[in-house]
Amino acid sequence: MPAAIASPSEWTELVAQQRWEELREKLERTHVSDIAEMLTELPPKERAIVFRLVSRERASEVFGYLPPNEQKELIHSLTADEVKRMLNEMRPDDRTRFFGEMPAEVTRKLLEELSPEELKESRELLGYPPESVGRYMTPHYVSISPDMTAGEALEHIRKVGRNSETLNAVYILDANGKLLEDIRLGSLVLADPQTKVTDIADPALVSLHAMDDRETALVLFEKYDRVALPVTDAQGYMLGIVTVDDMLDVALAEATEDIQKIGGSEALDAPYTQVSLWEMIRKRGGWLSALFLGEMLTATAMSFFEGEIARAVVLALFVPLVISSGGNSGSQAASLIIRALALQELKLRDWFRVFRRELISGLALGFMLGVIGFFRIVLWQHLHLTNYGAHYLLLAFTVWASLIGVVMFGTLAGSMLPFILRGLGFDPAASSAPFVATLVDVTGLCIYFSVALLILHGTLL
Amino acid sequence: MPAAIASPSEWTELVAQQRWEELREKLERTHVSDIAEMLTELPPKERAIVFRLVSRERASEVFGYLPPNEQKELIHSLTADEVKRMLNEMRPDDRTRFFGEMPAEVTRKLLEELSPEELKESRELLGYPPESVGRYMTPHYVSISPDMTAGEALEHIRKVGRNSETLNAVYILDANGKLLEDIRLGSLVLADPQTKVTDIADPALVSLHAMDDRETALVLFEKYDRVALPVTDAQGYMLGIVTVDDMLDVALAEATEDIQKIGGSEALDAPYTQVSLWEMIRKRGGWLSALFLGEMLTATAMSFFEGEIARAVVLALFVPLVISSGGNSGSQAASLIIRALALQELKLRDWFRVFRRELISGLALGFMLGVIGFFRIVLWQHLHLTNYGAHYLLLAFTVWASLIGVVMFGTLAGSMLPFILRGLGFDPAASSAPFVATLVDVTGLCIYFSVALLILHGTLL
Repeated sequence: MPAAIASPSEWTELVAQQRWEELREKLERTHVSDIAEMLTELPPKERAIVFRLVSRERASEVFGYLPPNEQKELIHSLTADEVKRMLNEMRPDDRTRFFGEMPAEVTRKLLEELSPEELKESRELLGYPPESVGRYMTPHYVSISPDMTAGEALEHIRKVGRNSETLNAVYILDANGKLLEDIRLGSLVLADPQTKVTDIADPALVSLHAMDDRETALVLFEKYDRVALPVTDAQGYMLGIVTVDDMLDVALAEATEDIQKIGGSEALDAPYTQVSLWEMIRKRGGWLSALFLGEMLTATAMSFFEGEIARAVVLALFVPLVISSGGNSGSQAASLIIRALALQELKLRDWFRVFRRELISGLALGFMLGVIGFFRIVLWQHLHLTNYGAHYLLLAFTVWASLIGVVMFGTLAGSMLPFILRGLGFDPAASSAPFVATLVDVTGLCIYFSVALLILHGTLL
Repeated sequence: MPAAIASPSEWTELVAQQRWEELREKLERTHVSDIAEMLTELPPKERAIVFRLVSRERASEVFGYLPPNEQKELIHSLTADEVKRMLNEMRPDDRTRFFGEMPAEVTRKLLEELSPEELKESRELLGYPPESVGRYMTPHYVSISPDMTAGEALEHIRKVGRNSETLNAVYILDANGKLLEDIRLGSLVLADPQTKVTDIADPALVSLHAMDDRETALVLFEKYDRVALPVTDAQGYMLGIVTVDDMLDVALAEATEDIQKIGGSEALDAPYTQVSLWEMIRKRGGWLSALFLGEMLTATAMSFFEGEIARAVVLALFVPLVISSGGNSGSQAASLIIRALALQELKLRDWFRVFRRELISGLALGFMLGVIGFFRIVLWQHLHLTNYGAHYLLLAFTVWASLIGVVMFGTLAGSMLPFILRGLGFDPAASSAPFVATLVDVTGLCIYFSVALLILHGTLL
């Protein structure tokens, strides 16, 4: 278990009693990630005070662990000198992410605080598109040359490795900086010191391109079980590395985003507990209103069939049942396809294969639900639970037939919409369960009443 | 980019032409993970042939990367000797997962093939509950004693490290096997060889308990950015380690499971493309039928209000609009809360805080949608798009008031259901969007018609 974690109230108390030495000592024994978590729970004023007590070497690391909002606030409470020192000491990948979250003009102002060297690094990393591998890259890695022995390589690492983001893997580059192989530190340590590094390099080099999407990086990390992957440009020249801890963050963040979108709200971009009530209502209200406007079409569709409903009120009873079945089968299909696309189990070109498959699934599922619906109506009639009138059998057939149509349409809409969105360059997860349900509700009504007109014409209608 | 990956058809061709030497050579240059992927795409017969050509040392690794179904099939096509050798050479954590996926009697039979030592290991790991940290543990790590220097430690690692799952971190244990500190291999290499290991150990030891849930492990990995974490028993004695590559798999698998459940189907437990059509229909049909049975209550609820609908058909027009708004707000809330619970941003004890918050959100969102609905009706009436009759204003108020009630109920049901499920020991993700929608549909109907009776009594009703 993590050691020496105190509750926020303990910190607040120490601050209130101005027991600085004790605070400083406690901070020294606390993991940077825990300090960051604690800071987010303190009121802003005390946050700045406690942050200043963190030792110089660790302050930039703590800052890197803070959520964007807290970073922004904290920057304002620090002196220009403190900001400058901290920015220059931050890890390049943390810094890129921090700059990426700030408004453009703040970023521009802060970039001026960097030393020429760090500025160059930051400008390059910020040049890559958001969510590309380049944004997660750090240029701080250890490279070795192909003619070194294991012993020489270890000696080299001892000399230059202190500043590296990780030492778990080192990289063999040729004289021009082209990536040849990667090699685990463990393999170097295990090898006979006289062995050539090229003879112990791990087989099958896997590398990323700086312009790759972060989801692609994630899939490669998952597949090859690496703790770091090298990043090259299109010509194979080494640019930096991406580490697995960032990928774990990406995996969780991507899934959170997708789940929130599938649920039908904007991505919150922060933990539930840290989003203010009004921000939350805004993010949810937007989508909810859009869906509401779409769902209004159901009222319009229903009004077309007002005459039919007046003549056969019994038809209205099954409206929620029929249309919700379409919505449910649509949500199922959409969430399965969205996830398969995210994990790259499915590619855009697979759409027709999926279409065929979902068509059959939809027919089968609709038929099945139709059977249940049919017998529900017949049974209730015979048990005298509800009286659906003399034409109850025709009504039962209407429900059966519409369910086949509605469920099939729901399944197809739910499965194709993510492909269409991906094809248009949008996030497939935007085809949320509520969005699909709304789409299917309107169509479902039309299917239901059309089937009713067809089957019940001359009897009920 | 990964090197030397051939397409399945190339493999099939080589098999057909019996070019064994070429095949063997190609396999030697292919990453084990790519071999496993290729094997899943080959027909079963060729799969066994190609698998036999993989070199002995790598066969068990390839086997570990295969999905459970392919593992099961392959086991049947191998001789008893081959199975025995492979099982004994598999990594303990891969083996545990493999045994965990097999039917109990197959596991029992296979366990007999293990050497006494491996058997003991496997029995211990299988003793931990599924999805606990123990199941992902490997006992193959390197421990060092607290009185070693960095140089001695490196020498020790060189001697005993070959069998370790990872060398990125090594563990300082006292004479009794109690975990004292962990230390990165990189720190050992960087340190002066004369330094005591206890002086370079990384601060703030973080460790897991074997009985911890895998989600807890995931949260700690994410928070502390480690590549491996030590696992101890309740007394602090070291049992093994868990590595980050397994946690990345867990992160993706947990998210997939949650997304599929939120979408309203059983977890598929395999990639979309690898689930057979009938298996898919079965897994989706089960939930869909259950939801359908629940949704039948809407027909029952509607039939209670059949008289009201007959008197005021116009009421029926807004049924889909009102109830779907409740469903949508419920899906939103459910997905937000399910994810926050999974990431441990929320704990069970936070339920009341969430309740209060969602109550306010629900009221605000319902009020907002109500306003839109109200003006939609008034506008349509004045533009003569639809004629809602003389009492259209009262109708508009009915829709407004019901929306407040329905959306609030939806938000509360969606947010509390995951807590209730977690409290009862179930997976919160089972409170899927369609499930919440169904629940809210039935209640929404009752709210809508009750409000209508209240407001429209004496006029329309």
